[in-house]
Amino acid sequence: MTHRIAVIPGDGIGNEVMPEGLRVLEAVAKRFDIDLAFEHFDFACCDYYAKHGKMMPDDWFEQLKDFDAIFYGAVGWPDTVPDHISLWGSLLQFRRQFDQYINLRPCKLLPGIKSPLADRKPGDIDFYVVRENTEGEYSSVGGKMFEGTEREVVIQETVMTRHGTDRVLKFAFELAQSRPRKKLTSATKSNGIAITMPWWDERVVAMSGNYPEVSVDKFHIDILTANFVMHPDWFDVVVASNLFGDILSDLGPACTGTIGVAPSANINPEGKFPSLFEPVHGSAPDIAGKGIANPIGQIWSGALMLEHLGHKAAAKAIVDAFEAVLEEADPAVLTPDIRGQGTTQTLGKAIAERV
Amino acid sequence: MTHRIAVIPGDGIGNEVMPEGLRVLEAVAKRFDIDLAFEHFDFACCDYYAKHGKMMPDDWFEQLKDFDAIFYGAVGWPDTVPDHISLWGSLLQFRRQFDQYINLRPCKLLPGIKSPLADRKPGDIDFYVVRENTEGEYSSVGGKMFEGTEREVVIQETVMTRHGTDRVLKFAFELAQSRPRKKLTSATKSNGIAITMPWWDERVVAMSGNYPEVSVDKFHIDILTANFVMHPDWFDVVVASNLFGDILSDLGPACTGTIGVAPSANINPEGKFPSLFEPVHGSAPDIAGKGIANPIGQIWSGALMLEHLGHKAAAKAIVDAFEAVLEEADPAVLTPDIRGQGTTQTLGKAIAERV
Ligand SMILES: CC(C)[C@H](C(=O)O)[C@@H](O)C(=O)O
Ligand SMILES: CC(C)[C@H](C(=O)O)[C@@H](O)C(=O)O
Repeated sequence: MTHRIAVIPGDGIGNEVMPEGLRVLEAVAKRFDIDLAFEHFDFACCDYYAKHGKMMPDDWFEQLKDFDAIFYGAVGWPDTVPDHISLWGSLLQFRRQFDQYINLRPCKLLPGIKSPLADRKPGDIDFYVVRENTEGEYSSVGGKMFEGTEREVVIQETVMTRHGTDRVLKFAFELAQSRPRKKLTSATKSNGIAITMPWWDERVVAMSGNYPEVSVDKFHIDILTANFVMHPDWFDVVVASNLFGDILSDLGPACTGTIGVAPSANINPEGKFPSLFEPVHGSAPDIAGKGIANPIGQIWSGALMLEHLGHKAAAKAIVDAFEAVLEEADPAVLTPDIRGQGTTQTLGKAIAERV
Repeated sequence: MTHRIAVIPGDGIGNEVMPEGLRVLEAVAKRFDIDLAFEHFDFACCDYYAKHGKMMPDDWFEQLKDFDAIFYGAVGWPDTVPDHISLWGSLLQFRRQFDQYINLRPCKLLPGIKSPLADRKPGDIDFYVVRENTEGEYSSVGGKMFEGTEREVVIQETVMTRHGTDRVLKFAFELAQSRPRKKLTSATKSNGIAITMPWWDERVVAMSGNYPEVSVDKFHIDILTANFVMHPDWFDVVVASNLFGDILSDLGPACTGTIGVAPSANINPEGKFPSLFEPVHGSAPDIAGKGIANPIGQIWSGALMLEHLGHKAAAKAIVDAFEAVLEEADPAVLTPDIRGQGTTQTLGKAIAERV
């Protein structure tokens, strides 16, 4: 069985880390005899916008909808295209139109990567953030009144649905139930955000009835971010709305020192549409073109993709490979962000060889 | 000139730390010959709610409006009153009705307090979070449709105004200008929250024209929380909307290890209404009644209050006093949260004596 993968490098360092992501996928596909068919696309990036005045062709949905997965680099080039245009014209379209309602991000302390937290070692921190990925605070509903005057009022609506909330909660409860600790933490702000968040809390309580083995707690988002720093070992699976999940899934990797290498999966669990796998980092205009971007985020995202496609052992082989290369810590191989003198390519090749 | 201070201990440990806050204020008032007149109030707490079915008497506004300041403990007792009721019936009313549109919180690495971050020492981290305190994401506008059914939709509106945004930006720019580094960081999320946040960015740019000496940068809230952990030394003054400021002003103190002792000021800069000073910590049901709560948050809030009332030297004397007591680190004096065996009282008395 062939898995058809749409490859979209996007902007900036997306173009540099993507070849390494593919290199490692090819190596692992060979070893495990997996049939991956890659097809490359040049849209969903700001270069495309410069030429066509839009981020994607009108038939992007048709072009992509039958793929088994999308392997994405990074998008955004704020100097030429404002972020809210580039993102809403690409990544956020994929998430919504392909109903990738789960955003899943592992937060894990890796060997050889320095965490900014004191006294933590690999094994101490190992949790997932499950983020609602299609609705909530990320809406384009709202507008301005008395625009441009002293009386200007700007309104934006957060829109949550039972359909959208229950399905992300269900995914998170099932993930928690499948893990040894069986613990779920819900991010809320029901003391300040007085309509949507008390309702979110109610949905968590309702769903918990179906998962009696899972222990549930909740924190307001302010103290929850504080607890990520103070007690990262408390967490197993954290479930959050779109905005809160966005914050927590950057903060979590930051606490493990892995923000430059963290992966993310945008999943449509039913497989009705392709899911999308991308590193957490962006296009990084500051280092783009220098060939020094760390490719692990892209490579690790490839592992999440294989796992989603049903190849658990192959996914694990990738993670084992980059953990081994990190542990070895050869400065000639590692990129500068993790105290090496190597390049995107030296690190990508070393991981591919290890596989 | 007499300063009239309304004293509201509130719930839980609020009742334990408040006497120590007052003890230190009385000591410093004596030393600096400041005339403070305290008046005590038993409302704005869940006990009052239990008796009266509401958090405050109907004429609370009249009772409090002519005070020079409100010195508050903590509010909330989720076992008996849901947070969104207790908070919206007290603290959030004060902030709005008394137009305390600035929430100001120092984030400072103190001597003798262990930071969860590796390799940071006192002096390395010293910044302010300036939070919009009256509008934005904390609204009670919105509602539900198809309630209780599978089709349920829940909507909550974020409401920002030019009036409300410009005044907090102005305060933040002036604070930045008054400090040696003259640096302002704006918290945004204009790539995901597509109406209010791009507009917030525009207001920052517009205001920056008036403050050419202040250097300005901005980060999306997700990566900003990450940078609080990775690069807390980057920040001088951080300005944020109500929700983002709420998050950052818990996360900042968490990074400095001071979340249990951080103070906050809710300020009406024009002095038309009383400003309110309270510790960042809540009522802490888990340790309430044990006499071991750390009173420094309350005491430090007293320092912010004196500064607001124009007594800079007295405010500094309080901060110097608790920094000295922390540096001494006598375990018989310190509370358990900072590795002592003392009580709320031993620590409060030691600081008052030092003053
Ligand atoms: C208690 C709560 C409503 C409040 C807030 O979110 O404003 C608190 O977290 C704070 O920061 O003062
Ligand atoms: C680029 C941006 C819109 C996006 C988000 O906020 O969802 C990114 O931060 C992420 O987390 O994938």
